[in-house]
Amino acid sequence: MSNLYAVVMAGGVGSRFWPRSRERFPKQFLEIFGLGTMIQNTISRIEPLVPAMNTFVVTNALHVDAVKSQLPFLPSENVLVEPVGRNTAPCVGIAAQWIEKIDPEGVMIVLPADHLISNVPEFLRLLTLASRVAVDTNALLTIGIHPTHPETGFGYIQFDDMPDVNPFLKEGVYRVKTFAEKPTRDTAELFLKSGDFLWNSGMFVWKASAILKEIAQNLPELSAQLAAIEPAVGTPSYQSAVDRAYGVIRSISIDYGVMEKASNVFVVRGDFGWSDVGSWDEVVRLTPTDSFGNSLRGAVFTKEVNGSYIDAGKKFVAALGVDDLIIISTDDAVLVCPKGRSQEVKEIVDFLRRKQINELL
Amino acid sequence: MSNLYAVVMAGGVGSRFWPRSRERFPKQFLEIFGLGTMIQNTISRIEPLVPAMNTFVVTNALHVDAVKSQLPFLPSENVLVEPVGRNTAPCVGIAAQWIEKIDPEGVMIVLPADHLISNVPEFLRLLTLASRVAVDTNALLTIGIHPTHPETGFGYIQFDDMPDVNPFLKEGVYRVKTFAEKPTRDTAELFLKSGDFLWNSGMFVWKASAILKEIAQNLPELSAQLAAIEPAVGTPSYQSAVDRAYGVIRSISIDYGVMEKASNVFVVRGDFGWSDVGSWDEVVRLTPTDSFGNSLRGAVFTKEVNGSYIDAGKKFVAALGVDDLIIISTDDAVLVCPKGRSQEVKEIVDFLRRKQINELL
Repeated sequence: MSNLYAVVMAGGVGSRFWPRSRERFPKQFLEIFGLGTMIQNTISRIEPLVPAMNTFVVTNALHVDAVKSQLPFLPSENVLVEPVGRNTAPCVGIAAQWIEKIDPEGVMIVLPADHLISNVPEFLRLLTLASRVAVDTNALLTIGIHPTHPETGFGYIQFDDMPDVNPFLKEGVYRVKTFAEKPTRDTAELFLKSGDFLWNSGMFVWKASAILKEIAQNLPELSAQLAAIEPAVGTPSYQSAVDRAYGVIRSISIDYGVMEKASNVFVVRGDFGWSDVGSWDEVVRLTPTDSFGNSLRGAVFTKEVNGSYIDAGKKFVAALGVDDLIIISTDDAVLVCPKGRSQEVKEIVDFLRRKQINELL
Repeated sequence: MSNLYAVVMAGGVGSRFWPRSRERFPKQFLEIFGLGTMIQNTISRIEPLVPAMNTFVVTNALHVDAVKSQLPFLPSENVLVEPVGRNTAPCVGIAAQWIEKIDPEGVMIVLPADHLISNVPEFLRLLTLASRVAVDTNALLTIGIHPTHPETGFGYIQFDDMPDVNPFLKEGVYRVKTFAEKPTRDTAELFLKSGDFLWNSGMFVWKASAILKEIAQNLPELSAQLAAIEPAVGTPSYQSAVDRAYGVIRSISIDYGVMEKASNVFVVRGDFGWSDVGSWDEVVRLTPTDSFGNSLRGAVFTKEVNGSYIDAGKKFVAALGVDDLIIISTDDAVLVCPKGRSQEVKEIVDFLRRKQINELL
């Protein structure tokens, strides 16, 4: 079997975990669940399949220091640095190009740096399965999550469960019919009811050569810029070649730019306790509680507090007589909001951006 | 008329304004209402009657630095330092002794450092009246506050409104019948209904010589210790004399030790927007609100927040979707509690004390 490579996409600048997440310190670098930051856990989770030397992290120039300090065991040349975020297609492109150069038959597993996965053995089993299909068929594979509710925050993948020549059908690997953008509530309910839609997790498996071929076909401009970078891969001039190319590369997602147009696309249907951890409410939902329904992190005093999530950071938080609140305290900011409304944290960040209160961003 | 002196009692170590108040930085040193700390406002309020050189502050050794830095215009020898708090009688005693030594006819106005008074002209009018009575009669005067509700947190003063030989009756200066300790709720309601009970504000007016005479009569032990200090007043050995005396002086209030026993005691009935500002709830009640019923101090973001008091300290506080909360943020701690429950803040301080988390006390 071909060698496996992991590509961890750590370019996110998510604002939904304000005040803990900041532009220079987004969610993937936070220790949100127990031990380890999200990116550390992403990488240690995949380690049984992919050794560190085969693991790449693509990140923004802003976050190189965070990546290197949180992942000291990662070879320094495995951190690919984008001067600016250009969505996922260029990120996948430069990683695929690097991997193809060192291993023309290499299979790459593309993973967001900030997801939570609770059933790791099942997750690894599916990645192994997907890798096998990628090798056997040169196909593009995506991991689809069995949906549990009509979520409007994710894209969806419709799969084809008709018997066909697909020899992997019985293993839960389906041909993709369509990719659907984030739906309205009504549409999401239809998707859920139909039974043949999965959540698009943003995780992919393919041969580096296969995705590069599809990029060439569907995103010729990006492909041309990758060609311009190519001679510099592994040389001291790599970064400047990347920086130059990113000056003209346009922002486009791999889903929209390639997956929706490519023909040989499969989805592996998965059910492994996945969450994209998109908000404080999602963190609250995923964090164990004490007998009062509280999740308390750090130095917290409570009296008659129920159903609340309190993260004191390095401070002391005293709460009394409140229910179902989310309280997040950091060195310079405090968030107080009821459970169920953490989506609106974005508005706080928007406010700070509008007012150019950069030290809190 | 005799010279007027002010004695500001700043020995409080109140814990009710945690997390803003700390053992080393109690309420009187906090800027709670608009500009100026409570002790600064106490002193500037009385300035039209008493110049700084006649103003004394009695404080604990812990707080000398705070007093001197907040009141730089005060002559350094006017800051009398108690090595330990021994309630109000010793505090009044050493101040009276000092004043009598520099001005045997001096009249002293005793004021707590941490009260709020909104109608200053009326307050000054009553102090002037009380001073005149003190000079004319050698009496002890206390300022009683017209009660507005059956408060159980204050002592009460019952006054005698029968026509008598008291020539000041028509000016609102009554003989005192009894001093009553903090009552139960039922008793407080009886007091309020009776119409002849006032709140004991802890403010007094008397000649230094008159109160010293009463101390000699009613608190002979304290008087003996004051006598031991007396030769040192105004000399370099004053502090060590005080420190020595405080080693044996016992803790007793001027109300209990003297006022309840003395015979020539009057109460000036006052109504000048007084508050002892005993809790965050009292601060909330006394602070102007915006059109959402909120009082916001410092850098605060709100969305759909109503009826709340938020003090961000030097941090940024973002609140969304909460009502009627008190949120106090300081450098190292955050308090979140609903309006109406700030009395329980004491329990947080008790907890910190029990756990010996001294850096937060």
